[in-house]
Amino acid sequence: MPRTDGERVIADLKRLAEFGRYKTGVHRPTYSPEDVASRQWLADKFAEAGLDPVIDGIGNVIGRNPSAQRRLLVGSHSETQPHGGWLDGALGVIYGLELARAAAADPALAGLGIEAVAWADEEGHYGNMLGSRSFTGGLSETEIETAASREGKKLRDALAEAGLAGRPRELFDPSRYVGYLEAHIEQGNTLESTGLRIGIVEGIVGIWNYWVTLTGEQNHAGTTQMIRRKDAGSAMVRLASRINDRFAEIAGPRTVWTIGRMLLDPNAPSIVPGRAEMQVQFRDTDTNILEPFERALHELVAEADHAGPCRAAIAPLSKTAPAAMDPGFQTQIEAAAERHAPGRHLRMPSGAGHDAQILSRRMRSGMMFVPSLKGISHHWSEDTTEADIVLGAQVFADAAAAILRGA
Amino acid sequence: MPRTDGERVIADLKRLAEFGRYKTGVHRPTYSPEDVASRQWLADKFAEAGLDPVIDGIGNVIGRNPSAQRRLLVGSHSETQPHGGWLDGALGVIYGLELARAAAADPALAGLGIEAVAWADEEGHYGNMLGSRSFTGGLSETEIETAASREGKKLRDALAEAGLAGRPRELFDPSRYVGYLEAHIEQGNTLESTGLRIGIVEGIVGIWNYWVTLTGEQNHAGTTQMIRRKDAGSAMVRLASRINDRFAEIAGPRTVWTIGRMLLDPNAPSIVPGRAEMQVQFRDTDTNILEPFERALHELVAEADHAGPCRAAIAPLSKTAPAAMDPGFQTQIEAAAERHAPGRHLRMPSGAGHDAQILSRRMRSGMMFVPSLKGISHHWSEDTTEADIVLGAQVFADAAAAILRGA
Repeated sequence: MPRTDGERVIADLKRLAEFGRYKTGVHRPTYSPEDVASRQWLADKFAEAGLDPVIDGIGNVIGRNPSAQRRLLVGSHSETQPHGGWLDGALGVIYGLELARAAAADPALAGLGIEAVAWADEEGHYGNMLGSRSFTGGLSETEIETAASREGKKLRDALAEAGLAGRPRELFDPSRYVGYLEAHIEQGNTLESTGLRIGIVEGIVGIWNYWVTLTGEQNHAGTTQMIRRKDAGSAMVRLASRINDRFAEIAGPRTVWTIGRMLLDPNAPSIVPGRAEMQVQFRDTDTNILEPFERALHELVAEADHAGPCRAAIAPLSKTAPAAMDPGFQTQIEAAAERHAPGRHLRMPSGAGHDAQILSRRMRSGMMFVPSLKGISHHWSEDTTEADIVLGAQVFADAAAAILRGA
Repeated sequence: MPRTDGERVIADLKRLAEFGRYKTGVHRPTYSPEDVASRQWLADKFAEAGLDPVIDGIGNVIGRNPSAQRRLLVGSHSETQPHGGWLDGALGVIYGLELARAAAADPALAGLGIEAVAWADEEGHYGNMLGSRSFTGGLSETEIETAASREGKKLRDALAEAGLAGRPRELFDPSRYVGYLEAHIEQGNTLESTGLRIGIVEGIVGIWNYWVTLTGEQNHAGTTQMIRRKDAGSAMVRLASRINDRFAEIAGPRTVWTIGRMLLDPNAPSIVPGRAEMQVQFRDTDTNILEPFERALHELVAEADHAGPCRAAIAPLSKTAPAAMDPGFQTQIEAAAERHAPGRHLRMPSGAGHDAQILSRRMRSGMMFVPSLKGISHHWSEDTTEADIVLGAQVFADAAAAILRGA
């Protein structure tokens, strides 16, 4: 089995966090100068580990392994959320780097076909998992041409400023890989709150998103009698309450739903809102849960529309399919976890999206979680204990070696 | 009785609407170049009507009547809401101008002590009814020093650009006036929907405003299990629904309430909102309605706070007292309405705030409404039929003359 160096893992994570450091976290949006510098640093580290690095036309850093027969691709993304955490993405990238180093340092492991990767823009500054979709052939030139950041910056311009214009994009060759393995912080507090240390991901949830729109009549909040109002804000809060109640009745044990975004128009204290919008999202690994949720949502919107006085309408925004992780990979991760943390691991879904869901469409894929302190993520205060980081690196390496040997 | 010229009223309203014309409405914020030009035009019209005009240091245009013994102040405000209507404020100003002209033209009315006024900034671009508050001694230099528009422009700078810096502000002399009379569009659809043509305002509602804040815990919308969430958005919609239900139970016949402004933080589809705020407002002419509303709101917020998992808090924002209109003035408006539109008038509250509520603290005050088509106001499509505009001018003039003669 490979022997990972926990101190080196911690040191490299801290060094990587210097690129765009923000308080105890990191602000390193995709294609920012800090992100570009960090990718060059990663490429250099991959080279030191004996890999042949390339930064491709979408920003993926791939540490190629030219000699091996069958390869396991390992990694995660390296950019961060705005003012995000130091481990989200970075942990999986450095675990991959450490695994490559451990394999290279031990003659007994020299044939182990590790390829390390740092994907670009999993966090969606310019699109939806651009790097892993590009690598698996799912990102068109048209999408690259039209994509822009929330601030309106064009992806093409960002790529040019990052020095990536004109570079070819790496495309995966199915015959080259045994599969893909990714480690990540849990981003929830299931592990921490139950005292467990390793999560074995069974599947990545499907995420279904909808816009729900209420249309009433904008009017003066003083002169419009209650009986004559068509208050889109009142209609929205009533409908939102019903959605929360109904979803609670039909939820599976792990279903989550969120109304995270609401807009009143014109959103002024003395104007009866003429229009209101909310974004409704739910997630589960089981399509047999997701479909009844969608039906219930449509029913509730139709009921609200029928009841009046405001019109209610629904439009689908995006739907990702649940992604199952490979059962054999799960077995190997679990065995490695049991070796290093007996009884302190859990099979669980991933409630967040990850590059592994993209890779899993094209090859066997697996994911492993380490605990997040207080379950905090997408915030600069996100953290994990050093002991858990060190343990996770070794479990990850053991699982990867076992997968490659069994392939 | 004075004889008003309906065609002249319509023509002047149309001319005034040319200052800042926007579609069929007007965009004429206080102290904008269009507003400054319109105030100069009004001063000239007041002079033509035989009055002695002044534009004072806050922008009020006052057409003084030097000769009369006892005077009735008549008018309204002349700026508009952003992209607002052509009659909101303007109607009352032009009615005052027309009344002054009618009085001046008829030797039998020559002694009638009409003073016409166009107040500044009733619409609150820089503050709360700046002009009428200044005139009645309720606007301090400190407030002028610190006030700014929503866009951050300082009132002092706006006054300087409008050429008003250094001008004295006119202060009312109680001995000079019988009272204040204001005409305005209704801004609701009570008159139109019941086929009535004149509203006699009994009182102007008190408007009580509160911020309600829900504090939960911001978290990832995929990885945070439902049972562990402290979703401030869900807490807000639940509380808002309860507020709407409870208020409906305790409302008086004319009470109105509005939750017109809601904010989720961070208002992103995949983040459990950590904080939510809403602005709750209610209005009634009766303090015995307003006070139970306030108690109910405090109770509901305390219940939500106690129930958890989010904290709920309330902070008062502003409270204006209801303002009663003078009963004698109401009688005179009603008598004039009955003369010109028998049986087609209604005593009613004003659900909107008006300069008359400021004046009523210092002198007898009255208000008269004409119908608003579809009840639309604070929008460029606001309108009133020409027949109603013409009728209103005559009723207003008759009532004013009767009040002055009876004084």
